[in-house]
Amino acid sequence: MTYCLGIINRFGIVMGADSRTNAGVDYISAYRKLFDFSVPGDRAILMCASGNLSVTQGMIHELKRDIHNREDINLHSLNSLYDVANYIGDKSRQIQDRDRAWLERDNIDFQCNFLLGGQIKGEDPQLFLIYPQGNHIQATRETPFLQIGETKYGKPILDRTITYDTPLEEMAKCALLSLDSTMKSNISVGPPLYIVMYETDSLHLRHKLQLRLGDPYLAKMRKLWEDYVRQAFEAMPNLEWKYVDEDPSEDIPID
Amino acid sequence: MTYCLGIINRFGIVMGADSRTNAGVDYISAYRKLFDFSVPGDRAILMCASGNLSVTQGMIHELKRDIHNREDINLHSLNSLYDVANYIGDKSRQIQDRDRAWLERDNIDFQCNFLLGGQIKGEDPQLFLIYPQGNHIQATRETPFLQIGETKYGKPILDRTITYDTPLEEMAKCALLSLDSTMKSNISVGPPLYIVMYETDSLHLRHKLQLRLGDPYLAKMRKLWEDYVRQAFEAMPNLEWKYVDEDPSEDIPID
Repeated sequence: MTYCLGIINRFGIVMGADSRTNAGVDYISAYRKLFDFSVPGDRAILMCASGNLSVTQGMIHELKRDIHNREDINLHSLNSLYDVANYIGDKSRQIQDRDRAWLERDNIDFQCNFLLGGQIKGEDPQLFLIYPQGNHIQATRETPFLQIGETKYGKPILDRTITYDTPLEEMAKCALLSLDSTMKSNISVGPPLYIVMYETDSLHLRHKLQLRLGDPYLAKMRKLWEDYVRQAFEAMPNLEWKYVDEDPSEDIPID
Repeated sequence: MTYCLGIINRFGIVMGADSRTNAGVDYISAYRKLFDFSVPGDRAILMCASGNLSVTQGMIHELKRDIHNREDINLHSLNSLYDVANYIGDKSRQIQDRDRAWLERDNIDFQCNFLLGGQIKGEDPQLFLIYPQGNHIQATRETPFLQIGETKYGKPILDRTITYDTPLEEMAKCALLSLDSTMKSNISVGPPLYIVMYETDSLHLRHKLQLRLGDPYLAKMRKLWEDYVRQAFEAMPNLEWKYVDEDPSEDIPID
C-alpha cells in the first residue's frame, strides 16, 4: 500500500509520501513515491505515484527519458500544467496498455494513481490527481487537498486543519501528521517519509524533508502529537447521558 | 454506509452506531443499527449491524421472534455468549441463503457484519465480530475494540486513546469522537447516534445515549473537539527541514 497527499492554497503547495511497497505481507520493501522534476526559475513539477510498482517505475523512467529524447512533449517543455497532466495520463495509458492483458490474466492489479503539483512560469500553482484511466481532477479553493493510496486514516486531520488560508508551515506539519496517523493505523504504509514545500510564484522548491525508519525526529514528533491528542481527549468533558433507562430491556426510544 | 464500534476492557463495554442507510446517494434514510436484548440481572446483550438492510432487519426480526417461539435456542436462553455468537452466525447464514441467489443475480451486496457485546451471568463480558460468512472473532486485552462498516476514519482516535485500562467514561467519550470523525469525513455516516455503556458484572446497562440530527449537544461536542484538536495542532512545532536543497532539480537524496 501507499499513502501520498498534496495540499494547495494561496500560499503554495505541500506534498508528501510514504515509501512502503508490499507484494503480500511477506515481501515488503521501500521505494520512492515522490519525485521532483523542477527546473528552478522556470517551473516546479512534483509527482507522487501509487499503485502497481512496475507500472509507476516504468512511468518515471519514460518521463525522464522523454526529457532528453522527445523535445516537443516532456515535463520541461510543456508550457501548462494542465497539458502536463494530460501528458502523464496518456503515458499511464500507454504503459498500462502494454502490460494490462498479461497482468489482468493473473488477476494482478495494474492500476496507478498520480498526484501532480507545481507551477510553470506564467501560470498559477496547480494540483492534479490523475486517475488510472488517465483522466484527471484538480484541487480547488473549496477542496484544497488530494490524496491517493490508503487515504482514509489521514483524512480527519486534513478535514480539521486545512483551509485556503492555512500557512505553508502548518500545511507541512499537517502533511506529516496525516502520514503518521496512516502509518500508525496501517502497517502497509511506512517510512522513509518525504515531504516537500513550494511557495507560490517562487519557481523554486523551498524545502525537502526525508525521514527514515527510526529517525529520532520522527519518533519525537509522533510522541509529541500523541501527547497533545491525549491532552485534547482528556480535556473533553464526559458524555452527558440523556437516557438513563430504568428498564433497559426496552429498546432505546426512537423519539 | 454504516459505522459501528464496540470497545471492551477491564471496566466494561461501550458500543456505538450511526443510523444512516443509503441506497445510492439519492436515497438516504435513518435506521437503527444498535439493539439491546438485555435481561437485567441475568444478561446484557447488545448488537450492532452493518450491511444489507433487508438482511439485517430480517435478522433482528427473527432473533426477536425466536425469544418467544424457540425456547431452546434464543438470545435469552443460551447460557454462553460464545453460543450466542454462533447462533447469530447461523441465523445470518440462513437469511443470506434465502435471499442470496436473487440478490447476487442483480449484483446487490447481501453481506452483513455484526458486533455482539455483553455478559451472561456466570461469564466474563465479551465482545464478538460476526462476519458475513457466519464465523466470528473476539476482542482481546491486546485488541480491545472491534469495528464494522466504514471503519477507517474513526480508527486513529481509538488507536491513540483506548487500552485495557481506559475508564468507562473515557471509552464512551472516545466512541463519540470516533463516530463524529467518521461522520465528518464520510457523508454516508450520520445521526441519530446511539451509544451504550455497560459496567462489568452489573448485568444491567448503565447508560444509553441517543443524539439526533441537529442535537445542540452533538454540535457542542463536535465544536469542542475541533477546537481542542486545533489547539493541539497549533502547539506542535513546525517541521525541522533537513534538506534545504541548493539544487532542487536534483532528486531528494536517498541516503
